[in-house]
Amino acid sequence: MKDQIQRRRFIKQSLAAGGSMFFMANLTSLKAEKKIKNILANETLQTIHNLRTIHGNFSKKNLTHDQIRDIVDATVQAANSSNIQTYSIIVVKDRQKMQNVCGYQGGCMLVFCADHNRIHRSAKYLGYSYHSDNIINFVTATMNTMLAAQTAVIAAKSMGIDSLLTNGLHRGDMDRVWKILNLPEKNCFPLIALILGYPTEEPVYNKGRLGGVGVVHHETYHSLTEEDLDEITAAYDDHSTHLALNPDWDKQGFSHYQDWLYRDWLDEASNPINQETQMFQLLKRSGYVDLQNES
Amino acid sequence: MKDQIQRRRFIKQSLAAGGSMFFMANLTSLKAEKKIKNILANETLQTIHNLRTIHGNFSKKNLTHDQIRDIVDATVQAANSSNIQTYSIIVVKDRQKMQNVCGYQGGCMLVFCADHNRIHRSAKYLGYSYHSDNIINFVTATMNTMLAAQTAVIAAKSMGIDSLLTNGLHRGDMDRVWKILNLPEKNCFPLIALILGYPTEEPVYNKGRLGGVGVVHHETYHSLTEEDLDEITAAYDDHSTHLALNPDWDKQGFSHYQDWLYRDWLDEASNPINQETQMFQLLKRSGYVDLQNES
Repeated sequence: MKDQIQRRRFIKQSLAAGGSMFFMANLTSLKAEKKIKNILANETLQTIHNLRTIHGNFSKKNLTHDQIRDIVDATVQAANSSNIQTYSIIVVKDRQKMQNVCGYQGGCMLVFCADHNRIHRSAKYLGYSYHSDNIINFVTATMNTMLAAQTAVIAAKSMGIDSLLTNGLHRGDMDRVWKILNLPEKNCFPLIALILGYPTEEPVYNKGRLGGVGVVHHETYHSLTEEDLDEITAAYDDHSTHLALNPDWDKQGFSHYQDWLYRDWLDEASNPINQETQMFQLLKRSGYVDLQNES
Repeated sequence: MKDQIQRRRFIKQSLAAGGSMFFMANLTSLKAEKKIKNILANETLQTIHNLRTIHGNFSKKNLTHDQIRDIVDATVQAANSSNIQTYSIIVVKDRQKMQNVCGYQGGCMLVFCADHNRIHRSAKYLGYSYHSDNIINFVTATMNTMLAAQTAVIAAKSMGIDSLLTNGLHRGDMDRVWKILNLPEKNCFPLIALILGYPTEEPVYNKGRLGGVGVVHHETYHSLTEEDLDEITAAYDDHSTHLALNPDWDKQGFSHYQDWLYRDWLDEASNPINQETQMFQLLKRSGYVDLQNES
């Protein structure tokens, strides 16, 4: 009991010392207290635990030149294979362009592309041949690119700047992204748009995450049992976890959150079956698919 | 001049206040001073600018249970599409297993896999059909996975723990990774191994990165000119940038670092041409390639 009171005091102090809405939302659960312990461990863990996605409500405030420079300088520090940085980052300040590329706009957009063009051009310039025409190069470049993208997200958050990572650029006619950004058709593929900025209103809580069975495995992969599936279902159904995209699933008559998720959200229409996807066609055009010349 | 002296004093103070070898290596360049300015901006940017890759020399010291828990708790905070976390993280403490999976070992290994099995199982358990049999799901899951992986890297570094992100698990017979970790053949693909731990010796400097032309573009993609290619070649050749994997390229008779890079490092042997790659075959087996049943 005394221990509990001390913990409460601890939490209150952390709130006084600059706590965010994140603390408020989860204050009741033990899990939250564990998180708060982490958060207090160091500023970087605090930054990571305060990460949140802002959707349609970025303010009109733009990022400054210095902020963008500091974020980009941090971004390229991410590890990458052979230190050849097989990515390109397109910095976009034009809000209409942001909207056209990914359907959102904010204080700045960084478009992250897997890209071997610099390597191709440099190699040729020095008289060497180089190719990147297979899936290995695409997967490796995608990994390099996304390590950089998350570094940008965390760097921005540490500077008080919120973010939205969106694959909106993969919706609709994807080729528009090449056209709007003047991307090379070959050896380049746009992966994700990062909108940076400030929200017009503070979210009431941050989304939760699954962090146990089904996500984290020990020594070998653990196949889910029925008990595990019940546990996962219950975790999504527990409103205090904030795992749900749609917090009103029960008011809308669903027995479980995941009923809404599988029936209304992850619908098959947006996930073509028995036909080649636009993404695969464009990946073939980029040269990042094995033997694409024969297909 | 007075300004310069003040800057030097500033740098000396920052060194006294806990600077690492990173500062020492770059102390002379203006770029480094800009970096130091960033580093002082907040702890998270400092953490990011101090990131470094440790290769063969992790010490025998293992991560504690609490350290691993704190890193994993931070890791899952990364943004992900539809909050369905289409990844699995295998925590491996067995050093021989680390070695067999990726060719390295350290204080702990996290293997990050794109994975839709939890979603498939949960959907089926609740009576829904769900499929992930195309490249869109693979690319989206890979992006989610890598956002989490870099969050782990930065969280660990903030706790004084260094890292190695390696695609060593894609070398040799890749199917061994499925066997060793008991991964599902379908709807799961191992992407990267993250070794965490402590180095036996401090690196003398941190690797540099290109952060300008060819990497960062403004508003639209900029195709490299000959002037740009000269600038990039010179940047790699400048020993003070620490961009080179092999700092002795000139002693070994190469005119430019990139001569070594394209001739001796990025050799074609490790990058098959005109034949289907093992990775593509295994991606097809996983179901993550469009219309894989027809090929």
